[in-house]
Amino acid sequence: MTERYFEDFAVGQTFASAKPLRVDKDDIFAFAKKYDPQPFHLDEAAARQSIFQGLSASGWHTAAITMRLITESDFKAAGGTIGLGFEAMRWPIPVRPGDELRIESEILELRPSKSRPDRGLMKVRTRTLNQNGEIVQELTANVMVPRRPRGAEGSPA
Amino acid sequence: MTERYFEDFAVGQTFASAKPLRVDKDDIFAFAKKYDPQPFHLDEAAARQSIFQGLSASGWHTAAITMRLITESDFKAAGGTIGLGFEAMRWPIPVRPGDELRIESEILELRPSKSRPDRGLMKVRTRTLNQNGEIVQELTANVMVPRRPRGAEGSPA
Repeated sequence: MTERYFEDFAVGQTFASAKPLRVDKDDIFAFAKKYDPQPFHLDEAAARQSIFQGLSASGWHTAAITMRLITESDFKAAGGTIGLGFEAMRWPIPVRPGDELRIESEILELRPSKSRPDRGLMKVRTRTLNQNGEIVQELTANVMVPRRPRGAEGSPA
Repeated sequence: MTERYFEDFAVGQTFASAKPLRVDKDDIFAFAKKYDPQPFHLDEAAARQSIFQGLSASGWHTAAITMRLITESDFKAAGGTIGLGFEAMRWPIPVRPGDELRIESEILELRPSKSRPDRGLMKVRTRTLNQNGEIVQELTANVMVPRRPRGAEGSPA
């Protein structure tokens, strides 16, 4: 797929992951051990007694998997997907062992950068869904996209 | 340290990580390979030619490390640190190989839950800083904290 410049995107465009990504119990343990070592992400008995009522992935694990799904999606900005930050993020329900996650992204806003004429800014909402179509994460991100260089149609900036 | 309930927190309280966490080149590669496999996080030559002008950690790696630093900090809510989502997050400058990261958190708001009398909600700003005191990530999170159970002063809910 060709890489896209700011000029190639439009508000309302949608993107989706190529194939679902399955989250297994061992993935949940491995991520939690390294980055979120709380009992309810590390131990099934502790998880059952916690507010989650069973083992669930760290929200940051869901966020990392979402990034992976974005890199595998048909959203191909020239120079890569470079997030500057985000405005809103929520984890409405936990990710459970065996869940198969996918993403759906939609462009909400596009505007040229005021300070950098070679760049544009894009607001994108990305929903991460499980195999039942339930939203496990919703994120509205601000992403940087290069403008198409003059006289260099289609080639990288 | 004793676990804290909603009633034990106050607006303006601050928390800090116990010790800095060093991010090495191999950590950056390992995280990126699994969750953010873009050339500027995987390859030093590609990174030099990218907008980052050198190797940098995935923003989601910084976010995951921040969670680790929070779990090691003196913020000890009863039942664990349970984020419901975020209002704002930004990555002002990249995290580089060899950076030593720490966090500083401050409670911005506290309010009892309207729907669940056993819980309170807390808005916390967490800054992740490098060894030069530069902010590499700033995050305002909504965190759930249990209220102290009646007649069970100091014991877990």
